[in-house]
Amino acid sequence: MSRSKAYVASVGLTPIGDHWGKSILDLAVDAASGALKGLGKERPDQIIVGNMFSAVGARQEHLGSMLASALGMAGTTAYKVEAACSSGGSAFNVGYNLVRSGAIDSALVVGVEKMRDIEPDEVSAALAMAESAEYTQFVGATFAALNGLLARYYMEQLNVTRDELSSIPVIDHTNAVTAAHAQFRKAITSDVVSRSAMIADPLRLFDCAPVGDGAAAALIVNDNAIPGSRRKLVEVLGGKIATNDFSLYERTDMLDFKASKDAFKGAMTQAGLAPGKLSFVEVHDAFSVVGALSLEAMGFSKRGEGSRDAKAGKYGRDGDLPINTFGGLKARGHPVGATGMYQIAESYLQLTDQAGKNQVEGAKYSATQNIGGVDSTSAVNVFGRGA
Amino acid sequence: MSRSKAYVASVGLTPIGDHWGKSILDLAVDAASGALKGLGKERPDQIIVGNMFSAVGARQEHLGSMLASALGMAGTTAYKVEAACSSGGSAFNVGYNLVRSGAIDSALVVGVEKMRDIEPDEVSAALAMAESAEYTQFVGATFAALNGLLARYYMEQLNVTRDELSSIPVIDHTNAVTAAHAQFRKAITSDVVSRSAMIADPLRLFDCAPVGDGAAAALIVNDNAIPGSRRKLVEVLGGKIATNDFSLYERTDMLDFKASKDAFKGAMTQAGLAPGKLSFVEVHDAFSVVGALSLEAMGFSKRGEGSRDAKAGKYGRDGDLPINTFGGLKARGHPVGATGMYQIAESYLQLTDQAGKNQVEGAKYSATQNIGGVDSTSAVNVFGRGA
Repeated sequence: MSRSKAYVASVGLTPIGDHWGKSILDLAVDAASGALKGLGKERPDQIIVGNMFSAVGARQEHLGSMLASALGMAGTTAYKVEAACSSGGSAFNVGYNLVRSGAIDSALVVGVEKMRDIEPDEVSAALAMAESAEYTQFVGATFAALNGLLARYYMEQLNVTRDELSSIPVIDHTNAVTAAHAQFRKAITSDVVSRSAMIADPLRLFDCAPVGDGAAAALIVNDNAIPGSRRKLVEVLGGKIATNDFSLYERTDMLDFKASKDAFKGAMTQAGLAPGKLSFVEVHDAFSVVGALSLEAMGFSKRGEGSRDAKAGKYGRDGDLPINTFGGLKARGHPVGATGMYQIAESYLQLTDQAGKNQVEGAKYSATQNIGGVDSTSAVNVFGRGA
Repeated sequence: MSRSKAYVASVGLTPIGDHWGKSILDLAVDAASGALKGLGKERPDQIIVGNMFSAVGARQEHLGSMLASALGMAGTTAYKVEAACSSGGSAFNVGYNLVRSGAIDSALVVGVEKMRDIEPDEVSAALAMAESAEYTQFVGATFAALNGLLARYYMEQLNVTRDELSSIPVIDHTNAVTAAHAQFRKAITSDVVSRSAMIADPLRLFDCAPVGDGAAAALIVNDNAIPGSRRKLVEVLGGKIATNDFSLYERTDMLDFKASKDAFKGAMTQAGLAPGKLSFVEVHDAFSVVGALSLEAMGFSKRGEGSRDAKAGKYGRDGDLPINTFGGLKARGHPVGATGMYQIAESYLQLTDQAGKNQVEGAKYSATQNIGGVDSTSAVNVFGRGA
């Protein structure tokens, strides 16, 4: 097939946190409006919303048409893409494939989630919808519980220490201090993580991403829909959504994040890029252990060494491969269906030198990795500076 | 751009009704297994699930990965597409665009909904998530209420009689008698409709589509993924998702189904087909008035004459343009996120001469029209016999 190149022309995002005064639609409009500034024509060909649980969080479905109308773009093709916490990265991948293949010339992709309107003790139940209602939810296994089991197994099988596990949250919090849109802009030490309140043994409060509201958006264009200036284009070099055996209990090796492995390999192959070329990576660390296993699945660390490498400085801002440059899921925040789009918006800011105090100097290539469930789905997208 | 042709190679569907013994996943697997029989290789490139409210109906999200895994296809790209009651037709359109553009070579699209597990008095509330939580749901306007208002306005403004309005449900029930998968296989007269229990004045019980469980699926392939035999291929000639001003109260003319008008026009233009060439049309008649307004929006009837034309026999099985050949939403049934895929599966059966007693003799071209909300979204897909 003949393929056009695809670019991110502009992005928009809201701060993450408690948006009591805004509806889920308000948040989506805010992020979309920012991303539409790069549009070279009246409206995008499609509007794609990434969202996990607006039905439970806002008693609202049909966000696609609703957003199109709210943006004054009634008529435009619009729909929602859902893949649990990987809804954002997956929605982007759908838009990217449609634009790159020339099926359409432009797509506005908006990730949005309103979590704080759910009663606090219902959030875990809402998130648990990413796992089987009949098998996993049924026995009361929340995601904190599942990842607690995973962390215990990881630490025992591969001799990972509590102190090592605390290293990725420390990186996140360090990077978030200067990130205007981050939920928690406060640096912490690994002691703070290791001694924080127990949530699901061995996972503690600071091992776990917080609950928050937010929306992030990107405008994808091909050469037929390039805006006026090519100066601020970031090329989308590759992308892939992959899945794993759905539930943890179905897997022969719980520590093998096969979806992330396959998605990363597929996206990098499409990009024609060696992993060593990446300037930074946005990693889906919903829990510290998930961050470590993700780094191992993508091949940046050897098995069992994701946290250890983090502790040794490899993934810090001055390390070999900076991760989570605005704070990652732990400190920037994790409004689930929006998270993948935050990773992409942050990549765009980095690759156009608009990352301010969080700038990775000379950043040229990046990858974003966005997981649904415990690696039941993984969406990886790869970006490159300039056009 | 260079485009491949896209075909439906096979379909699968479950009967519609009360599936107390099956989960939403069971239903999706049943329909998918049927559709996968036409696959010429090990697995499709993507699995796309169309579904509206599994979060509320089954406390389940993440159906894409879950289905891939249940089919023994873990690894495969999978996600859900949602656009309220047009989720099925919209999911198909996404798959079609990806296959036709060559981004991928094959897609399994599965529409599924489990409505009967919701408490009966909660179904209207679940459906109402297709409308604005803050404005429309807030005032208690269910879809029966909204369409009741619309029907009253339609009848009064355009001098439509009760008897005329009853004509489309009569066609549906007549056609469903011989449809094995239909929910209500019983013929009725217009008197039965006109004298049935009042639901939302002037709409009566038989003006309204029923509540039921079901799943339908189709396998889309391009020339790179044609199965062994080309004998049972149906070509997808065109498709478009369009939107309207989101809520009824925002529209300058409530009787103008602009989304359906635009989607139909766009899909037929892409197909290069004059409307007069269509052998039959599957119309989204969630309520009798919606069926009439849809026929008018697509230009088959003049304004105000959709029901009148139905009464005059135009849309019956022996009429100029048969509609809802297996019973439409009223009698085949309307498991919301699955409905669009039932329409497509039925088109496939017709265009491959597998429609049994419901066969439209010599059927060559068809269109399916699938609405979300009150025409807030409309997905139209167009099909042609043979390869």
